Amino acid sequence: MIDGSRRTIGWRSAIALAATVASILFTSVLATRSAWAQPNPLPSWNDGSVKQSIIDFVARVTTQGGPDFVSVPERIATFDNDGTLWCEQPVYFQVAFASGQIKAMVPKHPEWKSKQPFKAVLDKDIKALAATGDKGVLQIIAATHARMTTAEFSKSVSDWIGDAKHPRFNKPYTDLVYQPMLELLAYLRENGFKTFIVSGGGIEFMRPWTERIYGIPPEQVVGSSGVVKLEIGPDGKPTLAKLAKVEFVDDGPGKPVGINRFIGRRPIFAFGNSDGDLQMLQWTAAGNGARFMGIVHHTDAAREYAYDRKSPIGKLDKALDEGTAKGWTIVDMKRDWRAVFPER
Amino acid sequence: MIDGSRRTIGWRSAIALAATVASILFTSVLATRSAWAQPNPLPSWNDGSVKQSIIDFVARVTTQGGPDFVSVPERIATFDNDGTLWCEQPVYFQVAFASGQIKAMVPKHPEWKSKQPFKAVLDKDIKALAATGDKGVLQIIAATHARMTTAEFSKSVSDWIGDAKHPRFNKPYTDLVYQPMLELLAYLRENGFKTFIVSGGGIEFMRPWTERIYGIPPEQVVGSSGVVKLEIGPDGKPTLAKLAKVEFVDDGPGKPVGINRFIGRRPIFAFGNSDGDLQMLQWTAAGNGARFMGIVHHTDAAREYAYDRKSPIGKLDKALDEGTAKGWTIVDMKRDWRAVFPER
Repeated sequence: MIDGSRRTIGWRSAIALAATVASILFTSVLATRSAWAQPNPLPSWNDGSVKQSIIDFVARVTTQGGPDFVSVPERIATFDNDGTLWCEQPVYFQVAFASGQIKAMVPKHPEWKSKQPFKAVLDKDIKALAATGDKGVLQIIAATHARMTTAEFSKSVSDWIGDAKHPRFNKPYTDLVYQPMLELLAYLRENGFKTFIVSGGGIEFMRPWTERIYGIPPEQVVGSSGVVKLEIGPDGKPTLAKLAKVEFVDDGPGKPVGINRFIGRRPIFAFGNSDGDLQMLQWTAAGNGARFMGIVHHTDAAREYAYDRKSPIGKLDKALDEGTAKGWTIVDMKRDWRAVFPER
Repeated sequence: MIDGSRRTIGWRSAIALAATVASILFTSVLATRSAWAQPNPLPSWNDGSVKQSIIDFVARVTTQGGPDFVSVPERIATFDNDGTLWCEQPVYFQVAFASGQIKAMVPKHPEWKSKQPFKAVLDKDIKALAATGDKGVLQIIAATHARMTTAEFSKSVSDWIGDAKHPRFNKPYTDLVYQPMLELLAYLRENGFKTFIVSGGGIEFMRPWTERIYGIPPEQVVGSSGVVKLEIGPDGKPTLAKLAKVEFVDDGPGKPVGINRFIGRRPIFAFGNSDGDLQMLQWTAAGNGARFMGIVHHTDAAREYAYDRKSPIGKLDKALDEGTAKGWTIVDMKRDWRAVFPER
């Protein structure tokens, strides 16, 4: 006897017991790495058909031996960003960034105070800005997104996103991500999905913060881009210069093209919120096997915003009709989300 | 006493023992998921400074608390493909694919028998082909890589790579991958690296087989590309059409651009074999912290090929000088590789 307890067992039995306990623990460690059911995986989603459609889909594609099983490498999920993962009102946050940059650059460019499109940005004169058209937008992009290295641009984004606050909520923009979607991203990853952003926004505008905020690393961010060129400095040091020339617009019909170019496989799960996501959703739907197509419908003016068919930003019209007709999952923000933003 | 053995221990001790064994096993399960030393991780590499430089680098960047530790998400490794991961002689395998396609398409295009550049391909007349210049190359690409959907192209690659054999080795092209590099890819991944291909070859030519052959999924393949366009069929079904227009050339100065666009972070480890990889290696070298730059020098005419400064394919001249001067790891294939191809 080693200790003082009265009931004793043999060494051999003790080792057998140890092996059994170890084996149970071992198995449970492995189990947690593959698909498994959490008690309540999506706490910020209200119970109902929308939440259930997500859980049912994940169960279908992760049930080994089931008719809809999808192997882990094929579990590709793509998410639009603006209006799907974070707020996009009253203007796309990247536009707020550009405006902030222009304001900050005025001391070096005093002529902007009387020159369009910069004057319109400084005066917050949306009509005058709209009147400058595509040319105006390109001039703003050139001034704020180009003629610098990729490293300089990345720093300017990080600086801004650390400082700037949303005009209505008075919070950092990265606090205006949707808590239910953060939970959905995590839930999918726990079930073997690889999560990607496929956004009309600038790829270099998103990458400095997507890993920290969404757990999505830079190499899983697809977006619009400008032309970038390798330059070798006099010291032999290479830099990448951002030119004032659009390379790729990852929006509408560009989304399946961007998915093909960057990911090289068709998603089985896609989420968007506007007509700019329609082709991504159609491309996802057109594959073989089980498919999930989701749309965030902004119906909550009290907690966030309410907009759809007539909105100049995030217009949701054709995709709402097609999604309804085809039985895609349509999130009614007011009804389906218990919380909108994370509590911070 | 439960069994008949003479030495007995108390229940409490037995449970403590079980917990200890479980804890040891538990810890070892977790340990195998992070950096750890295999007894002989690179069996097809001969012992020497080249093999040692790889092992030392991996140890440096994976030693928690060490001065050169790199977090897992930042462990990005990029590999050229042609001449680095698989053979590229006597012609790039993608050129062999294009020739094979043209031969197969002759019945539908009898005029090609007397029309350049197709005649040159059919006659294996390298001089006549060279005389058609860039225009000829683009015509061949247009005929074999475009005017079809991405799905059709992927199938044509898969069909060819399953059938075709290398003229000298009389083996499938996918058997002509380098065994030491397969081991290196696996070794890096076991140590938390994410491995990418960054090749001048066509992205859509590589993706159908890189996962099976290298364990590198499509979304980790960067390469040259043609323009792709979304088309909606009369049945409403979307397809992606490959157009006869070059979009991006992922070679030379294009490689850092491709890395920036697709990966969005700078590699800490890069391997190439030709001057087309020089800028990727320079870009890798120019980052902060520990860096590994490697070059495969083809020095083995008996087992593979021997070529460098004067070779029209895989020319290695400037990169050999710069790599030597800067102390990059230069693999002498004949000296450093115990085996070249996998035994199949």
